[in-house]
Amino acid sequence: MSGRPINPGAELHLGKLRSVPHLGSVTLRDYCGTDASISRAARVSYGRHNATRTESDDAKLIGYLMRHRHTSPFEMAELVFHVRAPIFVARQWMRHRMASINEVSLRYTEAAEECVMDVRGLGPLCADPDSKDSKQGRGEPLTVGAITAADTAQAAWGSFGFALDLQQSDLEYKHARKAGISREQARVLLPLATMTEWVWKVDLHNLLHFLGLRTKPDAQREIRLLADEIAAIVADAYPLTWAAWVEHVRDAPRISASAWRALAGIVDADRLADALAALPDRERREILAALTAAWSAGDAR
Amino acid sequence: MSGRPINPGAELHLGKLRSVPHLGSVTLRDYCGTDASISRAARVSYGRHNATRTESDDAKLIGYLMRHRHTSPFEMAELVFHVRAPIFVARQWMRHRMASINEVSLRYTEAAEECVMDVRGLGPLCADPDSKDSKQGRGEPLTVGAITAADTAQAAWGSFGFALDLQQSDLEYKHARKAGISREQARVLLPLATMTEWVWKVDLHNLLHFLGLRTKPDAQREIRLLADEIAAIVADAYPLTWAAWVEHVRDAPRISASAWRALAGIVDADRLADALAALPDRERREILAALTAAWSAGDAR
Amino acid sequence: MSGRPINPGAELHLGKLRSVPHLGSVTLRDYCGTDASISRAARVSYGRHNATRTESDDAKLIGYLMRHRHTSPFEMAELVFHVRAPIFVARQWMRHRMASINEVSLRYTEAAEECVMDVRGLGPLCADPDSKDSKQGRGEPLTVGAITAADTAQAAWGSFGFALDLQQSDLEYKHARKAGISREQARVLLPLATMTEWVWKVDLHNLLHFLGLRTKPDAQREIRLLADEIAAIVADAYPLTWAAWVEHVRDAPRISASAWRALAGIVDADRLADALAALPDRERREILAALTAAWSAGDAR
Amino acid sequence: MSGRPINPGAELHLGKLRSVPHLGSVTLRDYCGTDASISRAARVSYGRHNATRTESDDAKLIGYLMRHRHTSPFEMAELVFHVRAPIFVARQWMRHRMASINEVSLRYTEAAEECVMDVRGLGPLCADPDSKDSKQGRGEPLTVGAITAADTAQAAWGSFGFALDLQQSDLEYKHARKAGISREQARVLLPLATMTEWVWKVDLHNLLHFLGLRTKPDAQREIRLLADEIAAIVADAYPLTWAAWVEHVRDAPRISASAWRALAGIVDADRLADALAALPDRERREILAALTAAWSAGDAR
Repeated sequence: MSGRPINPGAELHLGKLRSVPHLGSVTLRDYCGTDASISRAARVSYGRHNATRTESDDAKLIGYLMRHRHTSPFEMAELVFHVRAPIFVARQWMRHRMASINEVSLRYTEAAEECVMDVRGLGPLCADPDSKDSKQGRGEPLTVGAITAADTAQAAWGSFGFALDLQQSDLEYKHARKAGISREQARVLLPLATMTEWVWKVDLHNLLHFLGLRTKPDAQREIRLLADEIAAIVADAYPLTWAAWVEHVRDAPRISASAWRALAGIVDADRLADALAALPDRERREILAALTAAWSAGDAR
Repeated sequence: MSGRPINPGAELHLGKLRSVPHLGSVTLRDYCGTDASISRAARVSYGRHNATRTESDDAKLIGYLMRHRHTSPFEMAELVFHVRAPIFVARQWMRHRMASINEVSLRYTEAAEECVMDVRGLGPLCADPDSKDSKQGRGEPLTVGAITAADTAQAAWGSFGFALDLQQSDLEYKHARKAGISREQARVLLPLATMTEWVWKVDLHNLLHFLGLRTKPDAQREIRLLADEIAAIVADAYPLTWAAWVEHVRDAPRISASAWRALAGIVDADRLADALAALPDRERREILAALTAAWSAGDAR
Repeated sequence: MSGRPINPGAELHLGKLRSVPHLGSVTLRDYCGTDASISRAARVSYGRHNATRTESDDAKLIGYLMRHRHTSPFEMAELVFHVRAPIFVARQWMRHRMASINEVSLRYTEAAEECVMDVRGLGPLCADPDSKDSKQGRGEPLTVGAITAADTAQAAWGSFGFALDLQQSDLEYKHARKAGISREQARVLLPLATMTEWVWKVDLHNLLHFLGLRTKPDAQREIRLLADEIAAIVADAYPLTWAAWVEHVRDAPRISASAWRALAGIVDADRLADALAALPDRERREILAALTAAWSAGDAR
Repeated sequence: MSGRPINPGAELHLGKLRSVPHLGSVTLRDYCGTDASISRAARVSYGRHNATRTESDDAKLIGYLMRHRHTSPFEMAELVFHVRAPIFVARQWMRHRMASINEVSLRYTEAAEECVMDVRGLGPLCADPDSKDSKQGRGEPLTVGAITAADTAQAAWGSFGFALDLQQSDLEYKHARKAGISREQARVLLPLATMTEWVWKVDLHNLLHFLGLRTKPDAQREIRLLADEIAAIVADAYPLTWAAWVEHVRDAPRISASAWRALAGIVDADRLADALAALPDRERREILAALTAAWSAGDAR
């Protein structure tokens, strides 16, 4: 082997700014590894990493690794991004500890002329959620649906007032700076909507964990839009891993032991063989075993 | 608040050696945190950590956290063990990186008089697995079932020869040491069955991850027996967390997106309401939503 | 052994709020381990953890571990704090990744009635630094020294205007909330001076690393004042470790290889024995060896 | 920017086996980042990462980062190695937790025909150290120096007996396997000298930490020889970082606060300016400040 493994899907994205209007951007700066690096690392465990393998072998192995949460081979790919986003997004982003970060500091750097996010990046302003299901998130956009006159007025105020308020915070910072106050003190006036940027280096396993949390429907819209841009890059650069992750993690339901026993009891056993026919052999056997275990548990009661 | 939170279930185990005959032992040395520390930490997110809560509230919250993989509150409990085990077990154990370890070193310390594990710790010697299902593990015990005369001879040789071979390795080390060879060189003669010991400090989230891998039926028997001892301590010390983990992780099936769509198609919809009646409200709603999504996906084809 | 090791120095602080006026607070909530836990873990490496040791033995061993950066035993103590601080402090705090955190979320929780820090917590407002030495930090307080009339006016405006500006941001948030805008959107108006709080669990090794960076003179004053409160707790709870850290890390100079060769050349060799007489034997020998190496390197040129 | 940053020094080594005779090997498989990636990431903090910089600027900045332990930019480079070594070396290697590993498993894989290291990889067999300075390591080679007849006999036995003993362990494993015992049980007979291999992916910051511990004179010779091979690759691939690390970490002395005060008292102050003239301005100022502080502390007594 000579030269680094080249990842054609990643190369397409290198250095290309992916912008989310009024909100921020992500750019892939560097990477190492491909789907084949992942399967090759996994095969080291079996002492077979030098054998020739086809892409279909790789797909099967990567599906198996993902399904059984053998996560270490997915750490063998690494991606480096440059991210621009408002501080309230950066705060969520940096809770993911297994990554390397260098962020611009407002102790060292003057906040830029236009340092506060464009209010349009927030999308339609939304009413407080009153759903019983979730303590987080936002409800319906104030400007959507059969709203009353009073609502309309509020919504109109909302967007307009919001923009004014953000401009106001921006002015307060500049005001303090002109009065000779140090950067590190003046910045406390800046709002959470202030833009920041950072280099973000993360391995693929931890990146998928990030995407799992931040592309979910109940993630805050602003981080979700940026996470979706990253997801699009990952889907191109690691197509086998991406497909396996969607199948076995992202779109897989979370079924508790009790729920599984309940469902096992109302599955039509006669149609089981047909229904599962399209699954890979091994997965089908595992599901039949799990059903059998649930039926036994049911009988035992 | 004054004084540390006391964990009655953990206190029962403090300083008590839990031995696996001929194989090793685990002892709980120290801990911090209780189930209530975990739910309290989670409630900090909601700004409600000072409100009075019942154990039933805690159980519900902990179930929710586990189900939705909100893992950070489970890092708020910490356990410290003293572990004795053979080196081949220690090698697997130490692949779990999110823990603190101090292990005895055979560079500093003379290997003990009886430094090699008792061969009885290995249990019945087993034939090489030839199952197509798994590349790891062991097959049937050589001494069990309808075995031929030749097999019996092999099995007999097995236990006896094994014990002799281990003694032999032990002698080689002592021989080299008597010849004046340094500890750090002589140790290379010691077998992977050599006993070692270490202090192991780990938070509950990472401990559960360890238990998930090491108490599974396909884990190597020797690490599984020791992991089971640790599991017994955790079940006593963190009963709410333990129950939630068993329900939502350990005994929960892994269902891929495809398998879920297949199963959704053969569930008896008429009996669904009854079957799911015993589940917590929120979980039932989530499962119904997942079924509905699968049915829609099916119709769309 | 029965019962957990008790740390008398830590017990003194449990549950006691240590407040920094107008800025925030830290409270020790839980802990595990003592200085003796650390030396005992280190002695496991030597196979001598069950021997009886005096505090003086422990002090010597802990000094050795710290001097030679054998850091793993210091991970054997763990501390849990409840911290309140403004968001710009929290942002620096959370860059320390080797810790567990649960922070209040302004997606779930209404910002409190008085959610913005008291401007007096910032201390005297300071002029922008123009030192060539440092790109960060702040210069002289605007209100201190031989300031001109113009400066006085600025300073007066500074404190007054600052307080007004912070109140203003606070009002903007409340305004948006009254207009029915969701918490997660309205919070983008809040300034970096907004108060937040979190549970922080960290092992002693990583805590000392945090203190090394955040109690330095060039750390931002606001995080330094809170880090100093934590340092006071650590000094009481782990006196041997604390003394070793001050001696070998915090107050130890950073001397490059070149600087050492330069200094070695102008040391008065005749007075060396006397000057180093008070050092521990082993450290003295190591310094003499380092000097000898530097002298040889010098001769070789 | 388009395409990944290319590291010419790393490219030279890609895919080239660096062998340590009779002991093992390391091969660079992949990498990402260059010295310039590191300085660029650091400059993001100052908001100046897009300005044009010379290599001399980079050298100065990297020296500053290393000197002041601003470690996060060094995490921006990543290296992937394939390593072959005996298990007792692998055990030390894998104590470094901040890395990704996939190792061959003797549960899945038959131990190779020649699975035990060549005894010549251990170098001359050495007598037990009796130095008071160190509890670890080895003493003088048994075959070197003015040895008595008895010693010679021992040494001769040493090499010869050692080779025989290792062959013996190898045979025991093969014996057990032929008797039909499973791989995961038979392996417990294998000695710590058994060869293993793994993929090792690590960032440059953590790699330098590894090299700091494992290339030291008191590291075990076998891991040191392999670490030296890795060091040679790093020195070529990251020349600025390597030089800064040698100057500020590897070859820098560890001087405690007390030792510094003692040395400050016997430095010839008149020759100070000349002696330090060759140091970078900023470092010279810092050392003068540290000396002044030590002198003041001395006067204060």
